[in-house]
Amino acid sequence: MITWQTILDAKNISRSDCERFDQDDPLAEYRSQFSLPPGLIYLDGNSLGALPKSTPSRIQHVIEHEWGNRLIASWNESDWFHAQKRVGEKIAPLLGAEPNEVIVSDSTSVNLYKLLVSALLLQHARSENQRRVILSDTSNFPTDIYIAQSACRCVKNSEVVQVSPESLIDAINEETAVVFLSHVDFKSGALSDMSGITQAAHDAGALVLWDVAHSAGALELRFNEWNVDLAVGCGYKYLNGGPGAPSFIFAAERHLASLDQPLTGWFGHHAPFEFTYEFKPADGIERFQAGTPSILSLASLETAMDLWRTVSINDVRVKSLALSELMLKLTREMLHEFGVTTTTPTSAEKRGSHVALHHSEGFAIVQAAIAKGVIGDFRPPDLMRFGIAPLYVGYADTWDAVDTLRQVCKEECWNDPRFQTRSEVT
Amino acid sequence: MITWQTILDAKNISRSDCERFDQDDPLAEYRSQFSLPPGLIYLDGNSLGALPKSTPSRIQHVIEHEWGNRLIASWNESDWFHAQKRVGEKIAPLLGAEPNEVIVSDSTSVNLYKLLVSALLLQHARSENQRRVILSDTSNFPTDIYIAQSACRCVKNSEVVQVSPESLIDAINEETAVVFLSHVDFKSGALSDMSGITQAAHDAGALVLWDVAHSAGALELRFNEWNVDLAVGCGYKYLNGGPGAPSFIFAAERHLASLDQPLTGWFGHHAPFEFTYEFKPADGIERFQAGTPSILSLASLETAMDLWRTVSINDVRVKSLALSELMLKLTREMLHEFGVTTTTPTSAEKRGSHVALHHSEGFAIVQAAIAKGVIGDFRPPDLMRFGIAPLYVGYADTWDAVDTLRQVCKEECWNDPRFQTRSEVT
Repeated sequence: MITWQTILDAKNISRSDCERFDQDDPLAEYRSQFSLPPGLIYLDGNSLGALPKSTPSRIQHVIEHEWGNRLIASWNESDWFHAQKRVGEKIAPLLGAEPNEVIVSDSTSVNLYKLLVSALLLQHARSENQRRVILSDTSNFPTDIYIAQSACRCVKNSEVVQVSPESLIDAINEETAVVFLSHVDFKSGALSDMSGITQAAHDAGALVLWDVAHSAGALELRFNEWNVDLAVGCGYKYLNGGPGAPSFIFAAERHLASLDQPLTGWFGHHAPFEFTYEFKPADGIERFQAGTPSILSLASLETAMDLWRTVSINDVRVKSLALSELMLKLTREMLHEFGVTTTTPTSAEKRGSHVALHHSEGFAIVQAAIAKGVIGDFRPPDLMRFGIAPLYVGYADTWDAVDTLRQVCKEECWNDPRFQTRSEVT
Repeated sequence: MITWQTILDAKNISRSDCERFDQDDPLAEYRSQFSLPPGLIYLDGNSLGALPKSTPSRIQHVIEHEWGNRLIASWNESDWFHAQKRVGEKIAPLLGAEPNEVIVSDSTSVNLYKLLVSALLLQHARSENQRRVILSDTSNFPTDIYIAQSACRCVKNSEVVQVSPESLIDAINEETAVVFLSHVDFKSGALSDMSGITQAAHDAGALVLWDVAHSAGALELRFNEWNVDLAVGCGYKYLNGGPGAPSFIFAAERHLASLDQPLTGWFGHHAPFEFTYEFKPADGIERFQAGTPSILSLASLETAMDLWRTVSINDVRVKSLALSELMLKLTREMLHEFGVTTTTPTSAEKRGSHVALHHSEGFAIVQAAIAKGVIGDFRPPDLMRFGIAPLYVGYADTWDAVDTLRQVCKEECWNDPRFQTRSEVT
């Protein structure tokens, strides 16, 4: 199999070399399982994953048969009632987790609130209120920090502290309740040392909560081997669950009985159909469910997870690193002259699965590339992100993408009025 | 138009009378806009509304074109970004609300948490912590109480007090922060006096939060005329948004700037794509959004609301009351001898849109009726619920439903082993 080392060692990689790499790619067959427009090079699977070809007919069945014909009976017949648990079980292997430690429910933001409030309550109780800090870093995704701030307003005498990624380990101390980080920096694509940081947190008596939005489905996670306590991840990025697909929660079995989450909707109750007024949480991971879940969204995510069952996540990681190595190498060779730089780590083991390029005219470059069928995204002030989803992105795609970036830079696309208007969302 | 008075005054209503009522029904045409299996009488639209015929093709378009072909571009092109606001605007007319006072987001449970925490914080601040009680009654839906208890754990020095529905008004006092009730009792189908209770709450300085899960789409709501402060409702019951469709929030414009909700995800931020670490809520109702919303669920609910735009909610209410009057009358005439009783109010103006029958063998009766194509649901210990969704339920349907209940009682269905096993969810 082609590795990042193969790419690094190769000289003057040509497009035909890339075609040859594609022929040797054990994941190449998966491309045909996704419905992508012909000619499009889609490097935004880290923002919205592509559509599996099996999804439309599955959703049609859920709508027309399960909802339309069987109506309320489908809660039992099609086991909608346990859909959140069932889809969680299908995600668990990608996380290195047991099936009873993962559940799908709500959005990432809402799930972070559940986990952070639970973790703060647990740590306050265990430490006579000494452990009162959510410790994060200054590269975490903003919504994660917003939610952490809200969790601290809910659990009195708590506080969010953000430090630089470099000083994080040293900042863990006897006040730290939970170390809360994104596994992959959503800007640079840098990968944190999940195992090492988790160990450091535990050594100091803290818990960890990892946001794996940009790593689940992109690389192998080993939550139980690394003793991860809590995690949350995204259904609509690398997992291909569809726009706004629900999020998943991981909570290590050893903590489950002690986690007391605040969004106590009836689906998290021990016996929701007894309709008692006393809330008694479900014994297991089901306690993280809240209200009635969206069945259409769950069915879409489940269809994607059925595709994932046949995938080797190790192959995904090997290919992802080879592709990002290729993109970085071609960027140095083909884009340097136009002033394009990168902050993505050059060491493969320190990378996630997207490449971050920088240029003061990044917005126009991304728009011009999109107009030529190469889809990336832009984050202010100057960041161009290109996500690598190895199930449907290949070596020749990557070569063509960099070549397209070269063309639009050469054409000085930033002088073209079509590419200068910033839309609200990209 | 046939009214409840027409039904009450009629003697010996026959099935052919009911067929004649159906011919005179101005809403009869809507039946053909729903996809229901032939011969099925569906009286569970208060639990899961039926499938509009326009929904499958709309969702197929969202999946195959918007997601599959246009991918990330659809956030702008198809305005997924404002879908929660747009669908809220389409619900507003059913609530007697302005378009900028309603937004769709998350589940009912999660939305109740947002509103209750916001209301407690506001009232604590306004009253030097004197207004510290969420006042509810002992007929509210259990999940509403679970969430209220959690909200009180989040806002210190707060408490849930539940009193009987009869003593509610007298229990409102200077400690009441918010009066929190279901508009329609999910068991008996009794309708609360929203206008009167809201007035009484305001006279005592309290806010109101109404759960309209069982009234939105079943009867005319006049939130602004009645000075309602806050409300939450359900997308998957009378609105026909699909299984687990997202919920909606109403917040009166006069309160919007003062409501500080705890689930501070990026979609509720003033400028989410600036990616700053300081949370600044959106100016308007958008502040109640949290994480990235499920687009498939929103599209399904939006398709249903596009059907609702042509419906007269006044006609819906008139027909609903005529049908419930018919069901109560036929129950007295045809089911009394088998020991079936009812707790649904006999006064039309005190009813919601479902009829509650009681029988010690209610579970078996509901199962036996389902086997004959009459779908209701059962709630322990002895409650049989029959929901009346006037867009797809008619007079002859109602006659046939009661006649079927008569048959299964006459056959002593409770002696049939097929109908004695309780499944987990019904």
